[in-house]
Amino acid sequence: MDLAPDVREALEHRRRAVDAALDAALPPETAWPETIHRAVRYSLFAGGKRIRPLLVLAAGEAVGAVSDDVMPLACAVEMIHTYSLIHDDLPAMDNDDLRRGRLTSHKVFGEAMAVLAGDALLTAAFELLSLRAEAAEDGQVRRHAQVLAMLGAACGTQGLIGGQVMDIESEGKALAPSDLERLHRAKTGALLGACVRGGALIGGGTAEDVRSMEVYAGAIGLAFQVVDDVLDATASSEQLGKTAGKDAQAHKATYVSIHGLDQARRMAAELLDEALAALVPFGSRGRFLEALARIIVVRGS
Amino acid sequence: MDLAPDVREALEHRRRAVDAALDAALPPETAWPETIHRAVRYSLFAGGKRIRPLLVLAAGEAVGAVSDDVMPLACAVEMIHTYSLIHDDLPAMDNDDLRRGRLTSHKVFGEAMAVLAGDALLTAAFELLSLRAEAAEDGQVRRHAQVLAMLGAACGTQGLIGGQVMDIESEGKALAPSDLERLHRAKTGALLGACVRGGALIGGGTAEDVRSMEVYAGAIGLAFQVVDDVLDATASSEQLGKTAGKDAQAHKATYVSIHGLDQARRMAAELLDEALAALVPFGSRGRFLEALARIIVVRGS
Repeated sequence: MDLAPDVREALEHRRRAVDAALDAALPPETAWPETIHRAVRYSLFAGGKRIRPLLVLAAGEAVGAVSDDVMPLACAVEMIHTYSLIHDDLPAMDNDDLRRGRLTSHKVFGEAMAVLAGDALLTAAFELLSLRAEAAEDGQVRRHAQVLAMLGAACGTQGLIGGQVMDIESEGKALAPSDLERLHRAKTGALLGACVRGGALIGGGTAEDVRSMEVYAGAIGLAFQVVDDVLDATASSEQLGKTAGKDAQAHKATYVSIHGLDQARRMAAELLDEALAALVPFGSRGRFLEALARIIVVRGS
Repeated sequence: MDLAPDVREALEHRRRAVDAALDAALPPETAWPETIHRAVRYSLFAGGKRIRPLLVLAAGEAVGAVSDDVMPLACAVEMIHTYSLIHDDLPAMDNDDLRRGRLTSHKVFGEAMAVLAGDALLTAAFELLSLRAEAAEDGQVRRHAQVLAMLGAACGTQGLIGGQVMDIESEGKALAPSDLERLHRAKTGALLGACVRGGALIGGGTAEDVRSMEVYAGAIGLAFQVVDDVLDATASSEQLGKTAGKDAQAHKATYVSIHGLDQARRMAAELLDEALAALVPFGSRGRFLEALARIIVVRGS
């Protein structure tokens, strides 16, 4: 994909900054009890693309924040994303052996430790952001509390967890398009929304900014899932770094199974346009959000 | 056990207030997606004694708080306690079929839903307290953030989760007494400590008050576990409402297996004295904390 070289380089730089902040936020592998810290770090540093933390940083920048202010949120959302992957991969859930080209947590550490590693990451995410809230300047403490609550809602039974429940319950069933959209808004969209709305809030954005972020996130959230479905239907396991064709195998309703491949690709392109339109008010400060939207939609083609 | 009738009645009244607050804090069973809300409520309203929320309310009262101020924390700690039970009972962990005399979550809803119900309760706990923080008066927001961070630490890899990891890894091994204490300080003590320290902080207590709470919690936390071990060794499954004798069966190190039954009972009595001594500064306002300490230690005899 064609990104301006300076944007590409800046994103790479930020990715490393996120990795360093995540490393600093967690106990080392040698800390008691070692197994859980090894398991947590195994999944957290498994070559993830850090899309969610980059969205937080980009949203902060779009409203004029310095990246230090939003870094704890950036780390928290990546911890939450990783927790959800570890639990989703469990034998009782999606039963996946591979993730990002490596064995999943429960294949390496056993099921008990995988459950606990997910629990630990979810807990660490809230702890990290709470510590930041506690230490924030007077005018900023309440905004952090607001983002904590927003993050809780995004992860809860109307968000991440609700989406996973619906995903499990819909396996082998023909979902109506509106239900499929509901599923993905909960499972993927809610957390992406919290990334950019939270980044904008902590960064000092206005209510208007936060609303623009919401529109942006809604569009890229769905685009993300549409592209995932297209990739599952077209790419090899090697390209994906996880088992390909699992959706069809499990008779899961996907954008491809419902709309067909061509229409799904068209949807992704339209959603990208919608996301970019929402960024107009931010002018050039929205350029990283724009780049991330393009990365999400174009990664598969 | 002999509690003054007015104390017994007040505790019963508070238990009902906690149940009502928990009910109000969670989506109804009919909310989408229904299965997860049924699973969450099945475990949360399973006849738990509400010791932790009662500790929060009692700690708040000891420093002069009104109970409305500390109720969100009271609900949050019960949600966290319930999440930890659901996950601990999973087949990959302790593999328990019974809890409080009823089938465990995974026996009723399946493993996937049990994992998610635990996740949902942990998430809801942080969300609830964050919402309260967001809405608190100016001078109170930071204290809430502090308690959120404290709660995160109590639930993390140095607390609840670390204790469970050590528990799993020590199965069938002979633990040194100091390791056994470390295990239980993490698995039980950390959350009990957060209950009373957090209740005192939100209630407006001083640093000195919080330190007294820490001593109190350390003592009742260990007493709690010693009594649990005594009960596991002496009571029937029917009396316990869960499978009895599991510790000996799993060759777990317990206070009874290390110190013998008589010495374990003496330890519990000494720990009770230690807890009560820490309450002296609170005078008569500490009477509910005193009653709860007695309830914890005397429940088995």
